[in-house]
Amino acid sequence: MTDPLVIFTPSGQRGRVAPGTTVLAAARQLGVDLDSVCGGRGICSKCQVAPAFGAFPKHGVTTTEAGLSPRNAVEDRYDRVRGLAPGRRLGCQTQILGPAVIDVPPGSQVHRQVIRKRAEARAITLDPATRLYYVEVAEPDMQDPSGDLQRLQRALAAQWGIASATADLDTVQRLQPALRAGGWRVTVAVHRDDAEARILHVWPGYHDARICGLAIDVGSTTIAGHLCDLATGEVLASVGLMNPQIRFGEDLMSRVSYAMMNPDGAAAMTAAVREALDTLAGQAAAEAGVDRGQILEAVIVGNPVMHHLVLGIDPVELGQAPFALATADALHLGAGEIGLRLHPGARLYVLPCIAGHVGADAAAVALSESPQLSDALTLVVDVGTNAEILLGNRTRVLACSSPTGPAFEGAQIASGQRAAPGAIERVEIDPVSKAPRFRVIGTEPWSDDPAFPADTPVTGICGSGIIEAIAEMRLAGLVDTSGLIGSAEATGSDRMVAQGRTHAYRLHGDILVTQGDVRAIQLAKSALYAGARLLMDTFGTDTVDRIVLAGAFGAHISPRHAMILGMIPDCDLARVSSAGNAAGTGARIALLNVAARREVEALVRSIHKVETAIEPRFQEHFVAANAIPHATAAFPHLPPLPDVTFNAGTEGCRRRR
Amino acid sequence: MTDPLVIFTPSGQRGRVAPGTTVLAAARQLGVDLDSVCGGRGICSKCQVAPAFGAFPKHGVTTTEAGLSPRNAVEDRYDRVRGLAPGRRLGCQTQILGPAVIDVPPGSQVHRQVIRKRAEARAITLDPATRLYYVEVAEPDMQDPSGDLQRLQRALAAQWGIASATADLDTVQRLQPALRAGGWRVTVAVHRDDAEARILHVWPGYHDARICGLAIDVGSTTIAGHLCDLATGEVLASVGLMNPQIRFGEDLMSRVSYAMMNPDGAAAMTAAVREALDTLAGQAAAEAGVDRGQILEAVIVGNPVMHHLVLGIDPVELGQAPFALATADALHLGAGEIGLRLHPGARLYVLPCIAGHVGADAAAVALSESPQLSDALTLVVDVGTNAEILLGNRTRVLACSSPTGPAFEGAQIASGQRAAPGAIERVEIDPVSKAPRFRVIGTEPWSDDPAFPADTPVTGICGSGIIEAIAEMRLAGLVDTSGLIGSAEATGSDRMVAQGRTHAYRLHGDILVTQGDVRAIQLAKSALYAGARLLMDTFGTDTVDRIVLAGAFGAHISPRHAMILGMIPDCDLARVSSAGNAAGTGARIALLNVAARREVEALVRSIHKVETAIEPRFQEHFVAANAIPHATAAFPHLPPLPDVTFNAGTEGCRRRR
Repeated sequence: MTDPLVIFTPSGQRGRVAPGTTVLAAARQLGVDLDSVCGGRGICSKCQVAPAFGAFPKHGVTTTEAGLSPRNAVEDRYDRVRGLAPGRRLGCQTQILGPAVIDVPPGSQVHRQVIRKRAEARAITLDPATRLYYVEVAEPDMQDPSGDLQRLQRALAAQWGIASATADLDTVQRLQPALRAGGWRVTVAVHRDDAEARILHVWPGYHDARICGLAIDVGSTTIAGHLCDLATGEVLASVGLMNPQIRFGEDLMSRVSYAMMNPDGAAAMTAAVREALDTLAGQAAAEAGVDRGQILEAVIVGNPVMHHLVLGIDPVELGQAPFALATADALHLGAGEIGLRLHPGARLYVLPCIAGHVGADAAAVALSESPQLSDALTLVVDVGTNAEILLGNRTRVLACSSPTGPAFEGAQIASGQRAAPGAIERVEIDPVSKAPRFRVIGTEPWSDDPAFPADTPVTGICGSGIIEAIAEMRLAGLVDTSGLIGSAEATGSDRMVAQGRTHAYRLHGDILVTQGDVRAIQLAKSALYAGARLLMDTFGTDTVDRIVLAGAFGAHISPRHAMILGMIPDCDLARVSSAGNAAGTGARIALLNVAARREVEALVRSIHKVETAIEPRFQEHFVAANAIPHATAAFPHLPPLPDVTFNAGTEGCRRRR
Repeated sequence: MTDPLVIFTPSGQRGRVAPGTTVLAAARQLGVDLDSVCGGRGICSKCQVAPAFGAFPKHGVTTTEAGLSPRNAVEDRYDRVRGLAPGRRLGCQTQILGPAVIDVPPGSQVHRQVIRKRAEARAITLDPATRLYYVEVAEPDMQDPSGDLQRLQRALAAQWGIASATADLDTVQRLQPALRAGGWRVTVAVHRDDAEARILHVWPGYHDARICGLAIDVGSTTIAGHLCDLATGEVLASVGLMNPQIRFGEDLMSRVSYAMMNPDGAAAMTAAVREALDTLAGQAAAEAGVDRGQILEAVIVGNPVMHHLVLGIDPVELGQAPFALATADALHLGAGEIGLRLHPGARLYVLPCIAGHVGADAAAVALSESPQLSDALTLVVDVGTNAEILLGNRTRVLACSSPTGPAFEGAQIASGQRAAPGAIERVEIDPVSKAPRFRVIGTEPWSDDPAFPADTPVTGICGSGIIEAIAEMRLAGLVDTSGLIGSAEATGSDRMVAQGRTHAYRLHGDILVTQGDVRAIQLAKSALYAGARLLMDTFGTDTVDRIVLAGAFGAHISPRHAMILGMIPDCDLARVSSAGNAAGTGARIALLNVAARREVEALVRSIHKVETAIEPRFQEHFVAANAIPHATAAFPHLPPLPDVTFNAGTEGCRRRR
């Protein structure tokens, strides 16, 4: 009689096993992804499976309940104590006696997929650096003395194949009581990263509490954290804080200047951001209902200045050529080394930086958006004070940073403000009446909706609002190709307000879009476009297949308006998407999948960095990109724009069409 | 013409090198041990050599000054600025042009020998884990961005063959200013231990200041530290402190009991000993005239209870069978992890423990005395509250711990006290008059010397004093084989004082040696002897070739008196030596020679542990060893002792001879 055939679904892995083999052992023999923390002792139930019975023409087998051993005492006890769903069996207890089709439900897969919201985004395969292992440790023997730690290490090697696991003093201090309280059975959290295995914690007996990880994106303005369950990948809490360094300077360069001008400036900013990170961890833990001590690791990303300040490195070199990073490679630290109070042994992984202007946040964006895995030539733009730009596909990936300045964030704009309640964030202008309608952050209806509350406070324009306003002004013929705003006479609109020799557009009450606003946005968009264009030149292409807008701000930009302004190169608008906080997502990927850390390290090494500051073509592209649009032929995906030209400082206007 | 022959002394290494080869390059080609920190750039002068000229019949060459390039500008400048002794040349500047005999003075040898005081002790070859390296680092390049740390790492690999050196955050924080202040030339301290290389510090340019290491022996009573210059091996300061844990209990078991009885007892003892270690480091630095920050590494040894308490591990398991250590292996830690404030990146190496009763101090003794390298069968006894005993030779080494109790330290002795000024430490008794003479700690002359100050305070007897007193009483016929003290009538001495049914000997004033004292010493010496004897049984021998008495107390024991009491097995007295604080010496060896760490780790793994607590023969030997001496035949190296027998509780006495 041949050995029975067993087929695992959904993977389809199949093979014959000796009768009496447990489902868990069969899964291991056949390389099937079936979880187990207790190592097959009927304790953890992580190996639950759902056998299927009947005729399976697709698989060419018919299975019956006789193909499996009946439910045994261990399963009965488990069902009594903790409950076993109908149809479920414990894989470590169930023996294969005949043909079997065994479904491995997602919750029993070690390397399950973590759901991401966007369909086009890469899947996250759960494979965290830190996992729980249940081990049985030999008791001490006076005749052959050895340390409790050494016997635990031998047990981990023998029972889990984890060789040379080290332990912090904190773990060694907890070890003896835990081993004795658990009757020489303990659960350990082992962190395995970069060829190193480290026992982070030890609990008596079988331990089933949550272990968590925290992915942090340290932005210049906001700090965002995702607290994740390391066993399921689930996001337990997402929290955000203002970066308290703002009191030292609004943008990156003003903070670098503060460090240059004040002897303890860098240290003060380091203390401020570290305190914020610690507060963030506390808030995330509270929101998720877990203890800080359950957080066993953290991942941090940030731009180079934030990266350095979090690490306690003076960022002064990042403010001047040649923009040398103190350290570029990924870092493996203890969380406590940056004052982050998690579990005392918690580890911290800091993503590598690409260059002095293209930091670990850009590396995280690269990991999240993975242009290196794409056939389509992908342009990824992370818009902030500096724009980090990636361009590439499977063949190679280029990166640069472009000095857009803070205009896109509402700074340097007459009525500009941060994206906060009261800020105009969306704008449409009727091309005939030149009347605007707009939407305000914090209020759902548009301004022309009867439901728009009359008393809605409208306090200014945020970054996405000014982009839409200027793009709509261009569409409505109120701004010409050169960026000049027309007069009331030239445009036929009484919304135009003369300001000396220039004009402004009255959006709402005192909120005007001024000639200076248009000039500021022109500078910013020219820089952004020139950076993208420089990468395209270096890549040897005039077109890109798709564009991803990343960053909190990128999430709110209307791709159509961005393209009307010429912020981004031409592209099928259907292939322009927003990635939201891609840097934060990259941090989460690195938290949940340890192989992704090696991947981003290799990717960063392979990325070709283009330095805009020393590249003459950047200046050429920058100057050439000033018009709106700067070259109609370059934007086949846009409709023709009104062909108006206003005269600077005069009220004359010519219509060409 | 053949290449010139060059001969290096004192090693005798010789070979032919291409004309124009520098002496440093020739030394490296021929495997000669010639130091260099600056890598041959004429900065450090560590490669100074002394060429010799003339006819060398032994070597078969005649050398002249023309065989070497003349002194060059680099040497002239060096001589001007820092001075070059007559006859000395810089090896990196001097080219070999003809036959040459080059002496490498001890100060120019990397692996120079560190002098030890005892002739029989093993030499320490200087090869510390932490050394200085001068490197030239590539400047940052905007076109090919990389971190300053990564360029330093590449320079270390290329210029010194040190691959994958890591750096703590502290070093990364200091790196950028140092590189720029030094014009991209820096000196780094690199710690290399156990396949790991770690950059501990970075100084601008060439740095010639001292780097130090601290070897610490944490005893139950005293903590001793040796601060060493890591470049020369020189002991810069030796300091000692009382172990402040004494307030929690005099001996080890009382401290373990304190930990058992008090919830925070272990933590309080950990805090106390860590504070003392930190004070010790401060005192050593002050005495040596260096800053704490110049101490880049430390080595700690101690018995298992001290080992655990220093590491913050509750020692409760060490107080009960099976005496399980929390961890037995050597530990590589940061000094800060135990609150030791040295250089912020300073490393800490903790020697391995042999067993639950035989700790890292015994491992250090084994390293210092190295029975595994000896042809002679060597018994090493480290006498303290517990005696740690090693027995072995090249074939194998055995170890045990014997519960001698605190009598040898003056506890449980009627007039006993610690070894401190006022304590009687040496005793002689005139065999005829039965009158004693003695020496007191703190006073040089003996008590019968006219120079002995009449007002010398004599406060009690310390451990070595009571051993000598009882051995002398035995020699003078005042104590019999069974340990009974004779009466005034039986001994004919009016120094004998009746105490109930027993007698005592008046040593000085109120200071008596009582029957209880003799019994306490008998118990202690029986335990010590039984441990040694058990190891001899296990080894399969009745005799040992040599005996080493280690420990601060061992340094003061008179071997002859110890053998008269039967503390140690019979041996040629000329081959019984004191090793002083061998544990401290072992710590110093591990500090100064990194290979010795691997050696002691291997030795500890290979040592066969014999557990006295569960070995029935230990009890048998213990009972049998009670007499003084317990078996005359077993001590052929001792003179016959008076054959007296006193009757317990009576005043009768018989003289057999």
